[in-house]
Amino acid sequence: MATYPPAIERLLAELTRLPGVGPKTAERYAFWLLRQSADRLRQFGLSIEHLRENIPSCSRCHTFDDNNPCRYCRETARDQKTICVVADTPDLLAIEHTGVYRGVYHVLGGTVNALEGQSPDQLNIRDLIKRIPAEGITEIILAMNPDIEGDTTALYLKKGLSQLPVKVTQLARGIPTGGDVTYMDETTLGEAMNHRQAA
Amino acid sequence: MATYPPAIERLLAELTRLPGVGPKTAERYAFWLLRQSADRLRQFGLSIEHLRENIPSCSRCHTFDDNNPCRYCRETARDQKTICVVADTPDLLAIEHTGVYRGVYHVLGGTVNALEGQSPDQLNIRDLIKRIPAEGITEIILAMNPDIEGDTTALYLKKGLSQLPVKVTQLARGIPTGGDVTYMDETTLGEAMNHRQAA
Repeated sequence: MATYPPAIERLLAELTRLPGVGPKTAERYAFWLLRQSADRLRQFGLSIEHLRENIPSCSRCHTFDDNNPCRYCRETARDQKTICVVADTPDLLAIEHTGVYRGVYHVLGGTVNALEGQSPDQLNIRDLIKRIPAEGITEIILAMNPDIEGDTTALYLKKGLSQLPVKVTQLARGIPTGGDVTYMDETTLGEAMNHRQAA
Repeated sequence: MATYPPAIERLLAELTRLPGVGPKTAERYAFWLLRQSADRLRQFGLSIEHLRENIPSCSRCHTFDDNNPCRYCRETARDQKTICVVADTPDLLAIEHTGVYRGVYHVLGGTVNALEGQSPDQLNIRDLIKRIPAEGITEIILAMNPDIEGDTTALYLKKGLSQLPVKVTQLARGIPTGGDVTYMDETTLGEAMNHRQAA
């Protein structure tokens, strides 16, 4: 099996760690990078190298934001007694874009993932639990992805929150807009039936 | 439209430049990177930053390799009069893996791509033309991808080589092994018919 020079092999190893990137995609990225100017590579490299040093986050809800407290925590018009719990900042933005939610947020910084060695202690869960009595929170909305990691995280949180005087809800599961009953997967259709809503 | 802190936006801009990476994939990569330790990010960043400085390539055929001349040019058992021209080093490796080819190579370092501003002068074409009389080359096999960029590059090379006393061939086009005549695209099926081989 022919191999590449060490610098390329090192880069390939780094690239295949990215989510969803296999050896072929890594190779594609690597050889694209090899055609870029030294200047561009320097800029790209530095943007990764110093990523953690440059990203300010909100000390209350852990959203990545230029301000601390973040733009969402600062908006006094928001319902400060309802927290929507999301895995990461992009999920928060997706919910913001719906224009439907007017409460505040809490960003976990990931989900429980045994395979990737991400345990609950690495998530911002302790801070969430502290916020409930400190801010008089009345409702926690769990908005993790409906997949194994998201469900595991939600289950963990539900257990942890069960002792506290707070209502815990989660995003509705059902048929997405534009979906087709005939071709819907059984789990989704089953959930849609079980959680049928008043028409 | 909500935006991310500048350091994240900068990284997203860099990531969306990678081939085949759109805003959503870039976001996925960025937020995965944000969960990595500062140490890991430093290592990853450096592997990109110093990429160009660390990659030795063969001064004869331009393959990325630890040795100069590269491992392929050094193999004296190879047919030194036949050059297979590839766009980049991974294509060379794919051809090596077939075990069918026993000549030497020439790596162009890309293809002619007007959209990405890659012109023929940026490819290692002049060196290829010099090799023909200098090494007494008798056959040039063009092994670019059968797509617009590959075909444009091949056409450009064919023109440039037409004045030289060298046979120019290209990889056969036809139905791939395991392919299905019914569902094959018209161009491929047409090429397979036009270039039909003795059974």
